[in-house]
Amino acid sequence: MTVQSNFINIVLVDTIHPGNIGSVARAMKTMDLERLSLVNPRLFPSDDAIALSGNATDVLKNAKIFKNLKDAIKESTFIYATSARERSIQWPIMNAASAATDIHNKVNNSKEVSIIFGKEDRGLTNDELEFANTLIEIPANPIYPVLNLAMSVQIICYEIFKISSDIKFKDWRDYPEVNSKELQMLIDHFIDTAVEIEVIDPDNPKKIISRIKRMFTRLQPDEMEASFMRGFLSGINKKLK
Amino acid sequence: MTVQSNFINIVLVDTIHPGNIGSVARAMKTMDLERLSLVNPRLFPSDDAIALSGNATDVLKNAKIFKNLKDAIKESTFIYATSARERSIQWPIMNAASAATDIHNKVNNSKEVSIIFGKEDRGLTNDELEFANTLIEIPANPIYPVLNLAMSVQIICYEIFKISSDIKFKDWRDYPEVNSKELQMLIDHFIDTAVEIEVIDPDNPKKIISRIKRMFTRLQPDEMEASFMRGFLSGINKKLK
Repeated sequence: MTVQSNFINIVLVDTIHPGNIGSVARAMKTMDLERLSLVNPRLFPSDDAIALSGNATDVLKNAKIFKNLKDAIKESTFIYATSARERSIQWPIMNAASAATDIHNKVNNSKEVSIIFGKEDRGLTNDELEFANTLIEIPANPIYPVLNLAMSVQIICYEIFKISSDIKFKDWRDYPEVNSKELQMLIDHFIDTAVEIEVIDPDNPKKIISRIKRMFTRLQPDEMEASFMRGFLSGINKKLK
Repeated sequence: MTVQSNFINIVLVDTIHPGNIGSVARAMKTMDLERLSLVNPRLFPSDDAIALSGNATDVLKNAKIFKNLKDAIKESTFIYATSARERSIQWPIMNAASAATDIHNKVNNSKEVSIIFGKEDRGLTNDELEFANTLIEIPANPIYPVLNLAMSVQIICYEIFKISSDIKFKDWRDYPEVNSKELQMLIDHFIDTAVEIEVIDPDNPKKIISRIKRMFTRLQPDEMEASFMRGFLSGINKKLK
């Protein structure tokens, strides 16, 4: 867990199903967040929560329980509330990705933030929403935007993690790509062999040769692949001798 | 459902818990995707699946069931596989957001794509992964990157939904790409021929066969290229008779 992630407090209000608390714990931990606050959970601790938490039992064990939302968020400087609810009075709202950027700015300046999630069947009440500085909306199908509680937590934690992770993808290649000269030699060898086995008409080879070149340049083989292909072509040449 | 979303085939392989299938259906529908394929589900249809699907029972009702992965993806032009698995031979890989952009480009050019998700406890096998043109990795906590199956589906569908479909990339190809079935036939033909000309050791073919599969899935030939390559291989076979 990074230092900053300790400044991010995930708050579940009035959760009905303990299994959802377990799923939330797992979702948080997969995204390197560990600080969970529970306001009035119907049943907690619970075997159902443990069963669904995967390897995130530590998140459950360290979860803090509060009687009311106010106490759960009292040390936070910024409060974000998730909501798909239509409100009579509009509130500042961000989508999940923008909120994640905003949250990073806050925690990098050592502000504690809370992100609150409402009850499964009705979300947050207006009274609860009005603790929030900003609402967060997860982009979703307008016809059916009803994400499961733990899914909402997963997506928001994922957006937060994406920013911090600065993920570098390891080059998947295990051998370096061939250089242009080696590639041309492979292409020539292929074309010669295609003529030898009479699949290219030597009188009118133009277009198919272009296609062969496009195919191999697009493939951009690595040295092992090129070496195998050269061996493959040599195998043909040898058999035909 | 938009026209494009019908080109996106979500494929679950060997799913153990029917409840997860229900959660996946709900996750898909919240992100405006509806096309679900099930390969060898342990139990389906099931009351557990319905219980967890929310208002997405139509997605379950329309789900197609297949005996093997090959059939489930055979009409798709591009195959994406989700994986956290360490492989002995590296495969092209994208993060979820880049993959979503890539998927949009494909479906906007009327290509059908499949996104495959493995069994809950072990993900996809190497044999299953090797159907894929590209792997998708969801950025996650390196210490505990184990997302629940439906959570993975939710995040990838969310990334796809987020992208506005108004960016259209013109396809540079002059022939359509082959579908998965045709590609497998080409790969099999190539391997058989390589054995015939003795460039594959039939006693220890494992790694080189993986490399051949990676090479052809990466190339993703169009119909003209595949047809030429089949002709090339047939030319060899004929000469050797």
